[in-house]
Amino acid sequence: MRGEFELIDRLCRGLGASRRTILGPGDDCAIVARSRWPSVITVDSMVEGRHFKIGWGAPEQIGARAMLVNLSDIAAMGARPSHCVVNLAVRRGLSTRFIERLYDGLKRTARDASMDLVGGNVTGADNLAITVTVVGELRGPALRRDQARVNDEIFVTGTFGDAALGWRILEGTLTVANHRSRSWLVSRCLQPSPRISAGQVLARLKPTPAAIDVSDGLAQDLGHILERSKLGAEVEVDSIPLSPAYRSIAGDDRALALTGGEDYELIFTIRPGFDEAALSKRLGVSVGRIGRIVARRGLRILREGKPARRAQARLRGWDQLRDH
Amino acid sequence: MRGEFELIDRLCRGLGASRRTILGPGDDCAIVARSRWPSVITVDSMVEGRHFKIGWGAPEQIGARAMLVNLSDIAAMGARPSHCVVNLAVRRGLSTRFIERLYDGLKRTARDASMDLVGGNVTGADNLAITVTVVGELRGPALRRDQARVNDEIFVTGTFGDAALGWRILEGTLTVANHRSRSWLVSRCLQPSPRISAGQVLARLKPTPAAIDVSDGLAQDLGHILERSKLGAEVEVDSIPLSPAYRSIAGDDRALALTGGEDYELIFTIRPGFDEAALSKRLGVSVGRIGRIVARRGLRILREGKPARRAQARLRGWDQLRDH
Repeated sequence: MRGEFELIDRLCRGLGASRRTILGPGDDCAIVARSRWPSVITVDSMVEGRHFKIGWGAPEQIGARAMLVNLSDIAAMGARPSHCVVNLAVRRGLSTRFIERLYDGLKRTARDASMDLVGGNVTGADNLAITVTVVGELRGPALRRDQARVNDEIFVTGTFGDAALGWRILEGTLTVANHRSRSWLVSRCLQPSPRISAGQVLARLKPTPAAIDVSDGLAQDLGHILERSKLGAEVEVDSIPLSPAYRSIAGDDRALALTGGEDYELIFTIRPGFDEAALSKRLGVSVGRIGRIVARRGLRILREGKPARRAQARLRGWDQLRDH
Repeated sequence: MRGEFELIDRLCRGLGASRRTILGPGDDCAIVARSRWPSVITVDSMVEGRHFKIGWGAPEQIGARAMLVNLSDIAAMGARPSHCVVNLAVRRGLSTRFIERLYDGLKRTARDASMDLVGGNVTGADNLAITVTVVGELRGPALRRDQARVNDEIFVTGTFGDAALGWRILEGTLTVANHRSRSWLVSRCLQPSPRISAGQVLARLKPTPAAIDVSDGLAQDLGHILERSKLGAEVEVDSIPLSPAYRSIAGDDRALALTGGEDYELIFTIRPGFDEAALSKRLGVSVGRIGRIVARRGLRILREGKPARRAQARLRGWDQLRDH
């Protein structure tokens, strides 16, 4: 690890570390004690202008979000975050103070997740980009995308479409007068809540559920489970959970709830018989049943058990848009 | 891991994997079997326009180089590469074929290093940037920067300044008529040779040497050892090993050998008594003794045991340049 040596040294100052970190930032590599468990690893990048804009929030929030979206991948495996490294691409025009505050957000979020930030690299580029690699421990079975079974029920955590509305508010294409709704939606976009402990609880259920976290939208990410499991699904569109803030803007229109990304909730499929309320209690987050896995490939959107042609057509149109 | 799902799926096709990879690309995280050893982890990024230009080599070479510079960090710890993940930021104007070929270079280099490429992410950006995180196993003591001792002798592997000359050739600011010299220097820039097995041999010596790999130049990277070890060094400038190609251009002028980056050789400090020839044989790469560690802080450049004022002044001037 290298590049802008003094800066990275300063950024990493005051980093706490657990006993598992043998050597933190400042050498060619960090050293981490061996673990009793298999590890999971994921990388994701947040690029200015594509995934966020600088004016959207405080630098700390931008840093925090880059870490949170990675933690969501750890959650979706049912794993525990253990340690991470950060690559920061910095463009001209950003002050050292800005970078330090952004890094404070990264460090704080790592600490809140009981994870050691063990190393980093800083480079120059034309965009600000924060690329985080998180390593986690898998203390039991993994929540995989390819493990859905026919007749599994499909559940989701939290509510959908909030982050997409929040995004539009931040972009200035949506005005929401109600202050409370506005700030809730914006915070859903800026500060996702990776379902880390819920994921770990899910991974202990038998048979192990399939799961994915929702970054690209409910329909698309459920599609990844279907593709990997070589199965299909029927989703009852009106059962997709909405927040009061979403409802106050879009009413019962679930188009954005179905296709809007960045919610970082979990979709999981589980054998029939689980009760929403009991599951919510167990996972520590509200969950809703939205449909079931079927043998026939593809995703079918239903309304009261019948094909919801309009929603399905929208989905198709949106799929085609995404392909370009 | 997400983003451009179909593309990343295609890029990862045909990936081999060892038994330690439980789940490769295609889920939220990859899963890797637990290891008996502590792990090392490093991240580094290669950004178009800063670290390379597209016209410099085949896409495969660009991909390979991004992997090789990370492997050099693993080598500098005395570790064995185990697995890696790649974040690819892609700009407009690059064909899918180009990206596939770049990825072929990444995959081939991982395979050659007996390392599993277990996951990746593709995002859009204004620069092409390849960010690689490599995890390795540490089967013995680590080669750290902070373990140099007074009176240790300073050795280097290989030759210095070649990559800096190769860079100038690629940039068009240096013309080298001799074809053999030209292609040797260019390949030293485009295809670094991380000293992985040499690093592992070094880590078994007792007492364990301090070491670093040279990305920013001999003087600067030796400086990191000195800083971390809170010591100084005397370097006999004329003992810095040069390649015949370097000599054919710069003669005995070692300015670039001292300050030019990207050589990805190792600098290590070791207790007195080791013989160059015997060490070269043991490490499987030529090594040269260039100086010794002293208690007085700072790096002093000597010529026949006396201060080499010109070289020292140059170094100072260059340090100031680097600071801006």
